[in-house]
Amino acid sequence: MTGRGRFITFEGIDGSGKSTQARRLAAALPGALLTREPGGSPGAEDIRHLVLTGDPGRWSAETEILLFTAARRDHLEKTIEPALSAGRTVVCDRFADSTRVYQGATRGDLRTMVDGLHELMIGREPDLTFVIDMDPEMALARVAAQGGAERRFEEFGLPLQQKVRAGFLALVRQFPARCILIDGDRDEDAVAADIAARLDLVPAP
Amino acid sequence: MTGRGRFITFEGIDGSGKSTQARRLAAALPGALLTREPGGSPGAEDIRHLVLTGDPGRWSAETEILLFTAARRDHLEKTIEPALSAGRTVVCDRFADSTRVYQGATRGDLRTMVDGLHELMIGREPDLTFVIDMDPEMALARVAAQGGAERRFEEFGLPLQQKVRAGFLALVRQFPARCILIDGDRDEDAVAADIAARLDLVPAP
Ligand SMILES: Nc1ncnc2c1ncn2[C@@H]1O[C@H](COP(=O)(O)OP(=O)(O)OP(=O)(O)O)[C@@H](O)[C@H]1O
Ligand SMILES: Nc1ncnc2c1ncn2[C@@H]1O[C@H](COP(=O)(O)OP(=O)(O)OP(=O)(O)O)[C@@H](O)[C@H]1O
Ligand SMILES: [Mg+2]
Ligand SMILES: [Mg+2]
Repeated sequence: MTGRGRFITFEGIDGSGKSTQARRLAAALPGALLTREPGGSPGAEDIRHLVLTGDPGRWSAETEILLFTAARRDHLEKTIEPALSAGRTVVCDRFADSTRVYQGATRGDLRTMVDGLHELMIGREPDLTFVIDMDPEMALARVAAQGGAERRFEEFGLPLQQKVRAGFLALVRQFPARCILIDGDRDEDAVAADIAARLDLVPAP
Repeated sequence: MTGRGRFITFEGIDGSGKSTQARRLAAALPGALLTREPGGSPGAEDIRHLVLTGDPGRWSAETEILLFTAARRDHLEKTIEPALSAGRTVVCDRFADSTRVYQGATRGDLRTMVDGLHELMIGREPDLTFVIDMDPEMALARVAAQGGAERRFEEFGLPLQQKVRAGFLALVRQFPARCILIDGDRDEDAVAADIAARLDLVPAP
């Protein structure tokens, strides 16, 4: 009999290195499952596709929150929970905290709905959340340097990215037992070593 | 300036005559809008299509409830509320009460979720609900006599239809201020005249 696996999530502003570090951590942990939101299961992908097709104003914010909660529920049931039950570590690139923080930054009035839906239909929190923190201008410069798409920054704007950063810092204060703040403004190896150390792991060579 | 319109729903077991009577009532009320669930708006239809395509076991009951709540929210925002705001009467063939009653009859353990989602994301109750009551065997005989599809009865079975009937009777006791129990085991004109009388309308000729 194996015990339950650990549920580890990565959060932080756009371009802070979540996907890079989630990939590295999952590769360093034997048998770990790497997954991500949005998406993470075929049903969740189909729901996301429905949300994103058609006119931009097609769905209200409330209907969108319902559809994204349905996608998260499917991801949890079909991908995350079965792996945890089989004793595997699950490393997830963004989860419910992203909804909380981005919703708070853009439509704070919907926070009651977001929290109520989470409590009623999702329930589960990660065992451990790495919140990668850095200045949004630095993250933008990094993405630009790599020739990456700056679309999110253009759409969202730096002031909103600053609000999102503040939202993630508030999240760490709200859930201190499971959140670990990581300084993302270092080279990839340094960040990865820090994360591994916080997990009580031998850092990957 | 017109006032807000009245929101009238029809509920009851399969084959009890809801669609027939909803159509007749809407036709008798000048300017009334006739709509129905499932469906009622393009977005709600698309969500419903997503739920119904693919393997039958594709979505869990919980994910389905989320998707159907998203569809109801869209139907409410895009079809029902705009008409009520414009002062029109809205006649809706099935609404949230159907979810409550069918869910209670098939998966009573989900009632807390159904009620919580309704309170959080839908909120609105009809001003008036006609619950058409009759014996399920009579309704089945009626549908069969018309050469109609008996699929729902085959899928669902008479014992479950009896539970659904009891669920609708309990609903009338739970919401006495807005529910009117109608004896559906009479000819169409008699039922329509009864409904019109309860609305303080001159019965349609
Ligand atoms: N520590 C680092 N130093 C420099 N560049 C980095 C570092 N970590 C990641 N990058 C690069 O920065 C870009 C953004 O990284 P990544 O995609 O991991 O961020 P993210 O947080 O997942 O972004 P998004 O929010 O857009 O998904 C990529 O081009 C990546 O190669
Ligand atoms: N009072 C009546 N007497 C006899 N037949 C009727 C009466 N009302 C409706 N019917 C017929 O019974 C069948 C079912 O009626 P209807 O479709 O209106 O029921 P319904 O409650 O909407 O059913 P469903 O739950 O399947 O949508 C139809 O063939 C209809 O023509
Ligand atoms: Mg990423
Ligand atoms: Mg009908």
